[in-house]
Amino acid sequence: VIERASEPPSGEDRLIARYFRPLATHPGARGLIDDAATFTPPAGADLVLTTDALVGGVHFFVDDPPDTIAKKALRVNLSDLAAKGSAPAGFLLSLALPEAIGEEWLEAFAGGLGADAHAYGCALLGGDTVRTTGPVTISITAFGTLPHGRMVGRSGAGAGDLVVVTGTIGDAALGLLVRRDSGKAERWQLNHRQRDHLIERYLLPQPRNAIAQALQQHASAAMDVSDGLVGDLRKLCAASDVAADIDVVRVPLSDAARTALASDPALVEAALTGGDDYEVVATVPAPAIAALKAQARAAGVALSEIGVVRADRPQANFIDQAGKPLLFKRPSFSHF
Amino acid sequence: VIERASEPPSGEDRLIARYFRPLATHPGARGLIDDAATFTPPAGADLVLTTDALVGGVHFFVDDPPDTIAKKALRVNLSDLAAKGSAPAGFLLSLALPEAIGEEWLEAFAGGLGADAHAYGCALLGGDTVRTTGPVTISITAFGTLPHGRMVGRSGAGAGDLVVVTGTIGDAALGLLVRRDSGKAERWQLNHRQRDHLIERYLLPQPRNAIAQALQQHASAAMDVSDGLVGDLRKLCAASDVAADIDVVRVPLSDAARTALASDPALVEAALTGGDDYEVVATVPAPAIAALKAQARAAGVALSEIGVVRADRPQANFIDQAGKPLLFKRPSFSHF
Repeated sequence: VIERASEPPSGEDRLIARYFRPLATHPGARGLIDDAATFTPPAGADLVLTTDALVGGVHFFVDDPPDTIAKKALRVNLSDLAAKGSAPAGFLLSLALPEAIGEEWLEAFAGGLGADAHAYGCALLGGDTVRTTGPVTISITAFGTLPHGRMVGRSGAGAGDLVVVTGTIGDAALGLLVRRDSGKAERWQLNHRQRDHLIERYLLPQPRNAIAQALQQHASAAMDVSDGLVGDLRKLCAASDVAADIDVVRVPLSDAARTALASDPALVEAALTGGDDYEVVATVPAPAIAALKAQARAAGVALSEIGVVRADRPQANFIDQAGKPLLFKRPSFSHF
Repeated sequence: VIERASEPPSGEDRLIARYFRPLATHPGARGLIDDAATFTPPAGADLVLTTDALVGGVHFFVDDPPDTIAKKALRVNLSDLAAKGSAPAGFLLSLALPEAIGEEWLEAFAGGLGADAHAYGCALLGGDTVRTTGPVTISITAFGTLPHGRMVGRSGAGAGDLVVVTGTIGDAALGLLVRRDSGKAERWQLNHRQRDHLIERYLLPQPRNAIAQALQQHASAAMDVSDGLVGDLRKLCAASDVAADIDVVRVPLSDAARTALASDPALVEAALTGGDDYEVVATVPAPAIAALKAQARAAGVALSEIGVVRADRPQANFIDQAGKPLLFKRPSFSHF
């Protein structure tokens, strides 16, 4: 007799059993002890599939709280599911860990992940945990469901549609600047609450899954704003072969962002082109705007009308109060 | 006018357009220009979902040919789909790239990935490309389909079932030893063809998707052999709450592995407990064995009967020709 179930399991098995098995509450996850998970799609449903990776030192600070790192990794994927009009169903986690990561970090990470999996109704179905000589790397593939053929793409915007955006824009980009240089909070004349708001918005996106169904019913096109409103709206316009005219003054800003921009008006570029908003920008046929607004209000999601779609060559024009288009050095965030 | 479709796209967009868009032939991939992909599951089907990551310097040598790295990354996932009895349907790719990775590497990587996506009928549906300060990290989430409730789990093995394994065992583990110390090929008295065979088996798994349907019809339990036959069979026994008695002499070995073991009999441990086989070990009720063997033969997949399942506390016994159980220092491979 060589192999006994009572033998100590491998380090990876032990790690999964201790930290991630408690999250695998969906029967299809099979307690994370099989090679794969099963998922039975609702009859007549399409799946919406997305994957996003976060790398330590690139997409988050390695000393960020592990529970917020986990939540951010899941939420950036949930944000895509929301923008496409789908309801979250489940996710798979691929986690590359350097040796320096200890049990305490893992416990907090798994705790944050489990809390959000529960809060958003998106079950952990499987995963892989591997060693890396590099930074912590978290790759999540999430999937959602919606009625067949109803995914909200980027390509459906039509002339006359109104452009809307959820929440507020620019907070995370400004929060990142404050994280990198804490003196900025003072120079921008932010109070503590305002400073904390911006930093918090960088740490922890607020994906708009609460209005996914309303978007699916009413939006002609939508995408999540992850690489800056200017560049992302340009992508939507390119996919739809339309132009959008945006009134910069109508772009929703938080009280903190307004204060910062009042101190330094040039920050408008960081706010409109920085990444990590994880809001939704959508186009909506004019007759549907009232219904979408009412549903957003009922769901507790702020929704602002910021412009209109025109038949023209693809472009996104951000027009200031003087009627002049803003010019940006770098319209979209990219690590490449 | 600031944003124009004719503006140069970001580095990431350009990279995706050049190397990965040509692979996105499935309509649900939407040319990789949307936030998410769609997939319409066949009526009455379950999905089987799996994720596996490969890290440069951990799971492959960073100077391995990029096309084989890509193929290995997909195939380790295809192997899970095969062992579960499902037909491949699609995958999402998460790719973390250090700055040192150039266009030539990416072109070869994408070429290998596209060739296998086509060969195995597993479409690229989406992905994310990010920067890392660490090694190349490739995380793939693949999914397959099968009739509702028909996934082959690890827990269905019953007393009296026969244990079968596909292909040959131990080649990749021996190939890795040769990769690390080229003098071993001579000491093991391998000819060039035998040496190349072992190295090739480490570089490029041969997932057994050709018999997935036969497994789904006939196997009571199955899993892919990725961390060593001894440890993996132990896991299957633990999940099924049974014991398995394996005749070591019936474990299928390649000509190259036989030659190596004849030179150094202690290599049996590396062969039976080393990782990276990507074969399937399955249990089959005795009345179904003839049908499974016939279907495997028709599919061109070697299938060897290596032992039997007994009602006993969970264990996997590897019995040598003298009737004595082999003892292993480390039954299963783990990076942790």
